[in-house]
Amino acid sequence: MSIDAVLSRIDDQLPEATERLLDLLRIPSISTDPAYAEHCQNAADWLVRDLQSLGIKAEARKTPGHPMVVGHVEGPKDSAAPHLLFYGHYDVQPVDPLELWNNDPFDPQLEDTPNGRLIRGRGSSDDKGQLMTFVEACRAWKEVNGTLPCAITFFFEGEEESGSPSLTPFMEENAEELRADLALICDTGLFQSKTPAIVTMLRGMLSEEFTITGPRVDLHSGFFGGLAINPIRVLSQVLADLHDDQGRVTVPGFYDGIPELSDEVRAQWDGLGFDWQNFLGGVGLSKPAGEQDRTPLEMIWSRPTAEVNGIWGGYTGDGFKTVLPAQAHAKISFRLVDGQDPLKLRAAFRDFVQSRLPEDCSVEFKGHGASPASIMDNTDPAFEAARQALSEEWPEPAAFVGCGGSIPIAGHFGSILGMNAMLVGFGKDDDAIHSPNEKYDMESFHKGTRSWARILHRLTDNA
Amino acid sequence: MSIDAVLSRIDDQLPEATERLLDLLRIPSISTDPAYAEHCQNAADWLVRDLQSLGIKAEARKTPGHPMVVGHVEGPKDSAAPHLLFYGHYDVQPVDPLELWNNDPFDPQLEDTPNGRLIRGRGSSDDKGQLMTFVEACRAWKEVNGTLPCAITFFFEGEEESGSPSLTPFMEENAEELRADLALICDTGLFQSKTPAIVTMLRGMLSEEFTITGPRVDLHSGFFGGLAINPIRVLSQVLADLHDDQGRVTVPGFYDGIPELSDEVRAQWDGLGFDWQNFLGGVGLSKPAGEQDRTPLEMIWSRPTAEVNGIWGGYTGDGFKTVLPAQAHAKISFRLVDGQDPLKLRAAFRDFVQSRLPEDCSVEFKGHGASPASIMDNTDPAFEAARQALSEEWPEPAAFVGCGGSIPIAGHFGSILGMNAMLVGFGKDDDAIHSPNEKYDMESFHKGTRSWARILHRLTDNA
Repeated sequence: MSIDAVLSRIDDQLPEATERLLDLLRIPSISTDPAYAEHCQNAADWLVRDLQSLGIKAEARKTPGHPMVVGHVEGPKDSAAPHLLFYGHYDVQPVDPLELWNNDPFDPQLEDTPNGRLIRGRGSSDDKGQLMTFVEACRAWKEVNGTLPCAITFFFEGEEESGSPSLTPFMEENAEELRADLALICDTGLFQSKTPAIVTMLRGMLSEEFTITGPRVDLHSGFFGGLAINPIRVLSQVLADLHDDQGRVTVPGFYDGIPELSDEVRAQWDGLGFDWQNFLGGVGLSKPAGEQDRTPLEMIWSRPTAEVNGIWGGYTGDGFKTVLPAQAHAKISFRLVDGQDPLKLRAAFRDFVQSRLPEDCSVEFKGHGASPASIMDNTDPAFEAARQALSEEWPEPAAFVGCGGSIPIAGHFGSILGMNAMLVGFGKDDDAIHSPNEKYDMESFHKGTRSWARILHRLTDNA
Repeated sequence: MSIDAVLSRIDDQLPEATERLLDLLRIPSISTDPAYAEHCQNAADWLVRDLQSLGIKAEARKTPGHPMVVGHVEGPKDSAAPHLLFYGHYDVQPVDPLELWNNDPFDPQLEDTPNGRLIRGRGSSDDKGQLMTFVEACRAWKEVNGTLPCAITFFFEGEEESGSPSLTPFMEENAEELRADLALICDTGLFQSKTPAIVTMLRGMLSEEFTITGPRVDLHSGFFGGLAINPIRVLSQVLADLHDDQGRVTVPGFYDGIPELSDEVRAQWDGLGFDWQNFLGGVGLSKPAGEQDRTPLEMIWSRPTAEVNGIWGGYTGDGFKTVLPAQAHAKISFRLVDGQDPLKLRAAFRDFVQSRLPEDCSVEFKGHGASPASIMDNTDPAFEAARQALSEEWPEPAAFVGCGGSIPIAGHFGSILGMNAMLVGFGKDDDAIHSPNEKYDMESFHKGTRSWARILHRLTDNA
């Protein structure tokens, strides 16, 4: 069959598809705030109705938190096409600081700018707009061909922005129902806003919070200063020791077992022409600050990091208080790569801190998340098929890329359901996800929808 | 004349004196919180009435902040006795955390404990109880002798706990009126809770707040971590560099010009038998953390320090947020000693920070207080006279001591009025000033009052 009729249908129906997305964006489905629970339910119900309108058996399934939307549709009879699962999330980030928004975050607007038309509103890029690219591709396909090209399971989460507490229990309890041949995830971006990208490696994450205690109570820095140990001084020393002057993390064993990039991947990445000066320049920086013997792309995609995400201790209000505090605190996260064991590194980090404490100080740790890196199997022919499909749609050929962030769902498909996952998304670096004035370019929405139609075609055409 | 009748009068009138103090303690004169401004006025008015009842011409004088209480009384005609000024403050610290108090901080109680009777309540030790020791000594003296032994100016401040913004302008505007031969200040403590002490050196203070900025906005530690500089990492390095491994401050020139202790002072301090193990043990510590080649008393009295009083940056709330923050902040104070120039050290510290910044970071400083150390002239015969008076009252002989804290008023008497100042006080280390459940021992109040009578006698008897 030819894909052209489906692509034309997508083009023709873009105004209606946009209206549907605006309708979904009007639902303030902020998952982290209990006051918005009903709106999360409403967004789930909206999606169920929309899937049902495509002839998909769908329902909003209860969890201890917000509902999971699960839908199933059969493909053509006797087709050998793979069974696909599509994942997206319908919940959104909170909107504060509200005063920095130029319009109501939940009254989405179309804006024409020198860079083209865009959709402004919370969730437009993360992830409602991206989620709907796949749904709209399916709608066009169904309308043209009367049926979808293969069996598809739709799986929409409502807790992605609040730590996904119900996700793995739900996947474990419904493993048989959810298992498919390949998971498609649409929650990532283009490479440098113009090159379509398939993410093949995601960094994992280990996060730790700790408190160093010195004196039993806060002290007066006049009466005790110079004699009593100050835990902020100790914390500063620990944090300063965490990197050497070449930007390497100094926790013993931190780099053990990390494979070097293959020559092939390295050549591919070199070919991407990553404009790191522009990437850093956009946030007011000019110098790569990581391991000085690594390229900027390695620093963010394939090398692990240690970042202090928060520090506090003593008096932090207006004015001055000459306290010598009893405690100092930090939150640290490590981005992990292939070969690193989060639990082993947690122990190594705790030893690292402990060994730096003077006799009079103690430390208490609070472990937060620990998830290994996710490495997708891109020898799966589906990856090359998707790469070709994306290259046909966009002006630049598609690339296999890394992603410095952590998207735990990609790992869960492997570890819980034994499935490979492929991450394709159309967000741009300037979409301001998690920030005020989030937007999604109409180009992302339109070409994203067309991209999924092409991918569906490539993955099922020979079946 | 004999002092015995005055001392007996103080003993007899202790219950009435205590009631008066309790009455003053019931006024919640918290100076830093504008909601308590009327109560500060009430405390000032209370003191004016009390001074007037002693035949002292007193009034509450307006300032842009809380009133100053100023009172004057003549001494006996043709007396050659020195004109004394007495300083104390009627304002108190805030009371939070209120839930840690065992009783209402402004419903003061007498408590009998294994260590004797005490007065519990905010301000009992700092400084209403101390202030009233002097007033009660004057009352007894007046009642026995019909007149005070010398001209005395009473000068009570209401902004000591909120940075004394009106103090120096008021002293400058009223210099002629306030100038006397010697200032007496009652806002310090006994040495180790049993040895009466005259403070002859107070450390000065330089305080600085600064913010290090890296990226222009907060970043996602997944997308930027490893490539973008984290200002918390830079701040930690700066703070860690501030001390070497021997506890010395590393700011260039920091120790320039500081005199060594004279052999006489050193011998005297050695003779005090400072029980630093007990002093540190009381707050859960065991090791002197300052300059390792100095004695513990030097560390807190005669050597300068650098203490970080507060740090903050990134996400400090519950849970985790993987932010790579744009900024990191610190508040630092330096306790200064004889020979150190605060303004010169402010410049040296700023250079120290600036020289440690990587190219992509900037720093903004906000200067807070800068006051030099105060060294009292203890060759003034009044000091020896007071030392003898105190030694007669207390079981241990009085000592000339240092004080690690900063009491700027002592310096102002010298710099603005050209007067020497003598600091004598009766607080104990466990009075919990600035903390919940503040108390003042009845022994401090009673023997403190008797001490001032003896000091007045010694300072005026030969006149």
